[in-house]
Amino acid sequence: MNKLLLDEQLHRFLLEDIGTGDLTSESIFQDEKTEAYVVAKAGGVVAGLAVFERIYQLLDPSVSMKTHHRDGDAVTEGDHVLSMRGPAAPLLTGERVALNVLQRMSGIASMTRFAVDTLGDRSIRVCDTRKTTPGLRMLEKAAVRAGGGFNHRYGLDDAVMLKENHIAACGSISLAVERTRAAMGHMVKVEVETTSGAEVEEAVRAGADVIMFDNATPAEIARYVPLVPKGILTEASGGISMETIATFRGSGVDYLSLGFLTHSVQALDFSMLVRKECSV
Amino acid sequence: MNKLLLDEQLHRFLLEDIGTGDLTSESIFQDEKTEAYVVAKAGGVVAGLAVFERIYQLLDPSVSMKTHHRDGDAVTEGDHVLSMRGPAAPLLTGERVALNVLQRMSGIASMTRFAVDTLGDRSIRVCDTRKTTPGLRMLEKAAVRAGGGFNHRYGLDDAVMLKENHIAACGSISLAVERTRAAMGHMVKVEVETTSGAEVEEAVRAGADVIMFDNATPAEIARYVPLVPKGILTEASGGISMETIATFRGSGVDYLSLGFLTHSVQALDFSMLVRKECSV
Amino acid sequence: MNKLLLDEQLHRFLLEDIGTGDLTSESIFQDEKTEAYVVAKAGGVVAGLAVFERIYQLLDPSVSMKTHHRDGDAVTEGDHVLSMRGPAAPLLTGERVALNVLQRMSGIASMTRFAVDTLGDRSIRVCDTRKTTPGLRMLEKAAVRAGGGFNHRYGLDDAVMLKENHIAACGSISLAVERTRAAMGHMVKVEVETTSGAEVEEAVRAGADVIMFDNATPAEIARYVPLVPKGILTEASGGISMETIATFRGSGVDYLSLGFLTHSVQALDFSMLVRKECSV
Amino acid sequence: MNKLLLDEQLHRFLLEDIGTGDLTSESIFQDEKTEAYVVAKAGGVVAGLAVFERIYQLLDPSVSMKTHHRDGDAVTEGDHVLSMRGPAAPLLTGERVALNVLQRMSGIASMTRFAVDTLGDRSIRVCDTRKTTPGLRMLEKAAVRAGGGFNHRYGLDDAVMLKENHIAACGSISLAVERTRAAMGHMVKVEVETTSGAEVEEAVRAGADVIMFDNATPAEIARYVPLVPKGILTEASGGISMETIATFRGSGVDYLSLGFLTHSVQALDFSMLVRKECSV
Amino acid sequence: MNKLLLDEQLHRFLLEDIGTGDLTSESIFQDEKTEAYVVAKAGGVVAGLAVFERIYQLLDPSVSMKTHHRDGDAVTEGDHVLSMRGPAAPLLTGERVALNVLQRMSGIASMTRFAVDTLGDRSIRVCDTRKTTPGLRMLEKAAVRAGGGFNHRYGLDDAVMLKENHIAACGSISLAVERTRAAMGHMVKVEVETTSGAEVEEAVRAGADVIMFDNATPAEIARYVPLVPKGILTEASGGISMETIATFRGSGVDYLSLGFLTHSVQALDFSMLVRKECSV
Amino acid sequence: MNKLLLDEQLHRFLLEDIGTGDLTSESIFQDEKTEAYVVAKAGGVVAGLAVFERIYQLLDPSVSMKTHHRDGDAVTEGDHVLSMRGPAAPLLTGERVALNVLQRMSGIASMTRFAVDTLGDRSIRVCDTRKTTPGLRMLEKAAVRAGGGFNHRYGLDDAVMLKENHIAACGSISLAVERTRAAMGHMVKVEVETTSGAEVEEAVRAGADVIMFDNATPAEIARYVPLVPKGILTEASGGISMETIATFRGSGVDYLSLGFLTHSVQALDFSMLVRKECSV
Repeated sequence: MNKLLLDEQLHRFLLEDIGTGDLTSESIFQDEKTEAYVVAKAGGVVAGLAVFERIYQLLDPSVSMKTHHRDGDAVTEGDHVLSMRGPAAPLLTGERVALNVLQRMSGIASMTRFAVDTLGDRSIRVCDTRKTTPGLRMLEKAAVRAGGGFNHRYGLDDAVMLKENHIAACGSISLAVERTRAAMGHMVKVEVETTSGAEVEEAVRAGADVIMFDNATPAEIARYVPLVPKGILTEASGGISMETIATFRGSGVDYLSLGFLTHSVQALDFSMLVRKECSV
Repeated sequence: MNKLLLDEQLHRFLLEDIGTGDLTSESIFQDEKTEAYVVAKAGGVVAGLAVFERIYQLLDPSVSMKTHHRDGDAVTEGDHVLSMRGPAAPLLTGERVALNVLQRMSGIASMTRFAVDTLGDRSIRVCDTRKTTPGLRMLEKAAVRAGGGFNHRYGLDDAVMLKENHIAACGSISLAVERTRAAMGHMVKVEVETTSGAEVEEAVRAGADVIMFDNATPAEIARYVPLVPKGILTEASGGISMETIATFRGSGVDYLSLGFLTHSVQALDFSMLVRKECSV
Repeated sequence: MNKLLLDEQLHRFLLEDIGTGDLTSESIFQDEKTEAYVVAKAGGVVAGLAVFERIYQLLDPSVSMKTHHRDGDAVTEGDHVLSMRGPAAPLLTGERVALNVLQRMSGIASMTRFAVDTLGDRSIRVCDTRKTTPGLRMLEKAAVRAGGGFNHRYGLDDAVMLKENHIAACGSISLAVERTRAAMGHMVKVEVETTSGAEVEEAVRAGADVIMFDNATPAEIARYVPLVPKGILTEASGGISMETIATFRGSGVDYLSLGFLTHSVQALDFSMLVRKECSV
Repeated sequence: MNKLLLDEQLHRFLLEDIGTGDLTSESIFQDEKTEAYVVAKAGGVVAGLAVFERIYQLLDPSVSMKTHHRDGDAVTEGDHVLSMRGPAAPLLTGERVALNVLQRMSGIASMTRFAVDTLGDRSIRVCDTRKTTPGLRMLEKAAVRAGGGFNHRYGLDDAVMLKENHIAACGSISLAVERTRAAMGHMVKVEVETTSGAEVEEAVRAGADVIMFDNATPAEIARYVPLVPKGILTEASGGISMETIATFRGSGVDYLSLGFLTHSVQALDFSMLVRKECSV
Repeated sequence: MNKLLLDEQLHRFLLEDIGTGDLTSESIFQDEKTEAYVVAKAGGVVAGLAVFERIYQLLDPSVSMKTHHRDGDAVTEGDHVLSMRGPAAPLLTGERVALNVLQRMSGIASMTRFAVDTLGDRSIRVCDTRKTTPGLRMLEKAAVRAGGGFNHRYGLDDAVMLKENHIAACGSISLAVERTRAAMGHMVKVEVETTSGAEVEEAVRAGADVIMFDNATPAEIARYVPLVPKGILTEASGGISMETIATFRGSGVDYLSLGFLTHSVQALDFSMLVRKECSV
Repeated sequence: MNKLLLDEQLHRFLLEDIGTGDLTSESIFQDEKTEAYVVAKAGGVVAGLAVFERIYQLLDPSVSMKTHHRDGDAVTEGDHVLSMRGPAAPLLTGERVALNVLQRMSGIASMTRFAVDTLGDRSIRVCDTRKTTPGLRMLEKAAVRAGGGFNHRYGLDDAVMLKENHIAACGSISLAVERTRAAMGHMVKVEVETTSGAEVEEAVRAGADVIMFDNATPAEIARYVPLVPKGILTEASGGISMETIATFRGSGVDYLSLGFLTHSVQALDFSMLVRKECSV
């Protein structure tokens, strides 16, 4: 992650919630110090702890923090994932934004880990898509990695992906690949979406770096994979759910890309608790 | 929604995905025109159509669009929600960002509608929380409204909410309310979180505008509501899920606030399809 | 105040004045250290000391500062409100911007204190309006509070205010209130502007949270107040000046809102003086 | 004025007031069209009409406007300075920001015109200072010009000004001028602040382009001016008020710089009125 | 190019030059219309015409423009590359920024074309590096393409490049490649810098996608190329100048990357001329 | 230089290169510390050392740096200009941006020094123009100063320059100067471009502060200079190259302005070398 870019994003998230000031904390607190900790309310994989910490550094550098886990760790209900100490006002002002980020990133990491485990085939890598929440792609892709997944291309500018619509508009896979190869330098990969064995073969001949099997069943994949020579990677995408992912075990494909990892996230629940006994 | 603020956000979403350029479309297309439409892949409540349209206006004003539904409409699988026409390159460049927004907003609207219908008690309003996705609060709150829900406070700056942690730090509900009343003008509402009948009574005496019953069961709520005089609103929050929401029917509370409306969204699936027969 | 937002604003103020560099200080000074202090050139209420300090922290963290008063303190001509020490170049580079902010905020605080004192009725609260200087609302509203006043709504997004124009366009107070109540959640207050006893009564029936008497004389207010039941707040606005404010004493209204507190500010004069005897 | 920079500033002013949306207008209006006009509530010099218009173009380009005066025109109470027509919602949403700008700019232009007229000596030019409201310098300097005044340097980066503090730190006027001349190119003017005839003579010898008489009385100025050869401009600054300005008539100085033109502005009152009879 | 990102950059370039306003044009011109054209003062390859046009669209949409060449066209001294018509003020205000961009982009395109032609071997592609001018990478890479070159990776985030320093820190090429392969998904290419035949062989075994020969002579390249199997691309980088580039003809390498294309640009001279005979 | 503005620019430069993260360093390094130094690969004048250091402070404050030269120092091939120590990841992540800035600024300083030395007449000052790289003007003008040159006006807003096009549009030099004098205050210089003795004389009579001889030969300049009275500065501009600059020696003009100092920069080569022996 680019920390300068991260700071810009976190700054915006804080501005969104705090607006022109935290009316409640500003009218209740003077300079009271307090302690708080964050506890998992359910089991899963934690992700976003360093981001959580950075949010408080931006909000008030006098807040100190100690994390008890690392991104990618499994946690169970009741685990304290971090402790913090500092002025009561910023501790409470930052709570919601920090938890919103932690819960979302941990939800994605947990889902990814669950997908990897359910698939149960380490020769196949699970990866994300561009179906991320607008504005959160850098964080969501980090959460996928924390959960044991891999990242597909980041955006439209770091790899070529010839989808059905592009190919249709061009006339053929061959022509589409040719045009991109004529324009692209040597550091850009070209992936081609295919829907039949004939298209797989055409993509191979055209010189694709990666071949995607769109909405293919495990059985179809098993037929397509042998058509692809070593050195060209394969990816299955579309129509894969938590219910069906295990059926892709042993299919021989290199990557499964899963939109639901990021477009339909179940937040992993965490709470921040202030220690009441402290001298506030 | 503030359209100037919306434009800033959409601009950022587009920059995130397009980065320094859409390598694929720029190398495939010249000036081909094409038509496309967006179709629902599942049933639900659509939200975000105007936002979808605005994304394309920002990307390329020569893209024309026609929406066939309005935000809040129920759609079923196969419904065409909008049609568009314009140069192939921007049509495909904007697809993912526009769909990501539409799918998320529609997912929230659908969930909200489902919650309202499952609750089945129009005397109780369903509302959101601040557990929104960082950076998307304005859009997510609009989606809640589209689904028939209401908005809780927008952020920390437009209303006072005295939660357990604030009250504990202050010493008592009475003192906390007193301090905020001394600082706030007449346009700010003060809500107090309570966990017992005694606290409800204290909050009433202290002059709260809204009293929240935290993690209260329907039975507890039924006991608390009569303690609150007319003119003070009541809200139940915490521990309410789609499975339990119907049990709050008839409880007499004014508002149910539901974090899951925005923190655990199931995207409503939409696809954009390019008409292949057109003269691209 | 949201300190992150404050920093953004102060950063812009400094850029406006410094532009591409302070030609004078850069060509005159090397690394000379110096001391300076800020002295009141007239009596009034000081406000903006922490903001003054923050301006220098942004400009050069090596400048140290000691404030001798707190916001809201009365000062008289000749009072030293703060002392500073650091490199001569940033001390002089920041002078104008820092003083411009301090003088304006102190001018507002002084005027507010004077209004409160002239009114001479602590049962009536003096408050501001949205007639603030564009870009300075957060600072100006803080200055009003420092002077002993209260804040009306911050902007268009944190409360509803149905003015003459809105009501005229809707047809009636009742209909206007009904529409906003149907759209708003429970944390938003609705204020209605009225110009007669009949309108006051209609606003009460419609369920307004706050009733504003527009351009009403003290005598009119005395007639309107009894029409408003306990629990609904009242505000007088329009046509109130420093000359007339004392006539509202004892009128029974809850709030007087005064546009001139922020739209016609007399800066409170302060000077920064560099100690010449120091070893520059 | 740089229109690109102006748009940035106006955009921020609108965001400050509208925030996440205009709760009132959004819940009251659909697509009603209406007409409105802006009327002067007092006499003075109008300034900011084009800025007013630009605010609405940014907010909603479908609002049409017709201005009946030009910046710098004298207006009297009751004059309609502009008319507008468009959707009721943006017309009312933009009202406060647009009027705040117009009233402030017109207040400055009126004060400037009054100063010029009171001085009554066209051989002396009235000019502003850097005591402007933070964030509004470009607009306030335009208002001074509209009122018949001139602009002093814009900021720290477009001219050198050696003030008492700079000179003290350097040791002498001669040395300070020498250092800046050694560093500056040929397009930068150097002004020196003086407090005695001896200092005026030293500044002349040092090669200043402009000599400022700090806090000098008309009598002192009359003694200083003959010491300054033709080709070097003179400026009187400090301690000049509306009460004393006429005493500088015939003093022979080239410029009077007046901080109060911008630091203590009396807004010129304008109201926006919606025509009720239109078919809203 | 991402047009939204381009607009942001051009906006900044205009603000840098115009600042708070074009003093000259604003005081000279009212609403005079004029015509102007841009003429090449030397021969070369033009690039940046659409960017030139966009600068004026941002500055004043009423300026109309007609380009007589396309990016990548060869021009000779005296060629008119574009004509424009519009208000005299913005035409002259935008001149310098627009020409600065056009001259720089055309300088890069000309140099690239010259390098390609001097090399005289179309089986070898000429490409750029990250040695671009800070803030101008998108424009400079477009200029390289206009001149017939190709783009290396855009930045640190779209491809992996293991340079001497990375490898030294890791211990070996094999380990470095292994670590990046373990972390990267399937859309990221990995390039390895090598300085000997042994390193080339190690990079091949490690699974590099691209192998770079650092500071290699044509003779060394001829020895290295046969060590690299088909499917892995090769690049020579370092120590190649316009004087030596022809010696790489026939060396069999796939790409030559040339830092001087962007770090040492000779601007291609263009002038803007206003037609004096028009009715200004 | 305005350090706040500098930080904004450097932040953007880093974002441009790092994007969403440095894929290479992030996958290779954990927390290894390393040392590196920057060495000149050619002789010239160094400029930008403090900027180089600031880039790393923004990227990672834990990187420590020691500079061995000051801006404006002559360096020869092999000189170590600075040493640094810190975590390997940020050291390598920032390398390219920091070197790109240093090389460009040093290239400009070297060229400026060379021009000054070749001219060999200290009574004539060498200065820059507005032909700077878009977005880099502040840095490039600082580099010119480091090389012993002077700065012409910064942009369109800090001085008036009446060029051929402006004069033609106005009708005459006299009229153009008169209009600007009527609009400008006393801190703005007015320069007039002339192309004949008659125009020089007209500019003198009109009251120009600076007179520019456009594309004049040394012989022409020798004829024009005596026409200009003391107190008015002269500048020669246009058609001056490194080949011809020495012919202007003794011409009596005050300033030579040279576009090539910034529009056609030859980067001064520097390398960053990581010490391999350290315990990475």
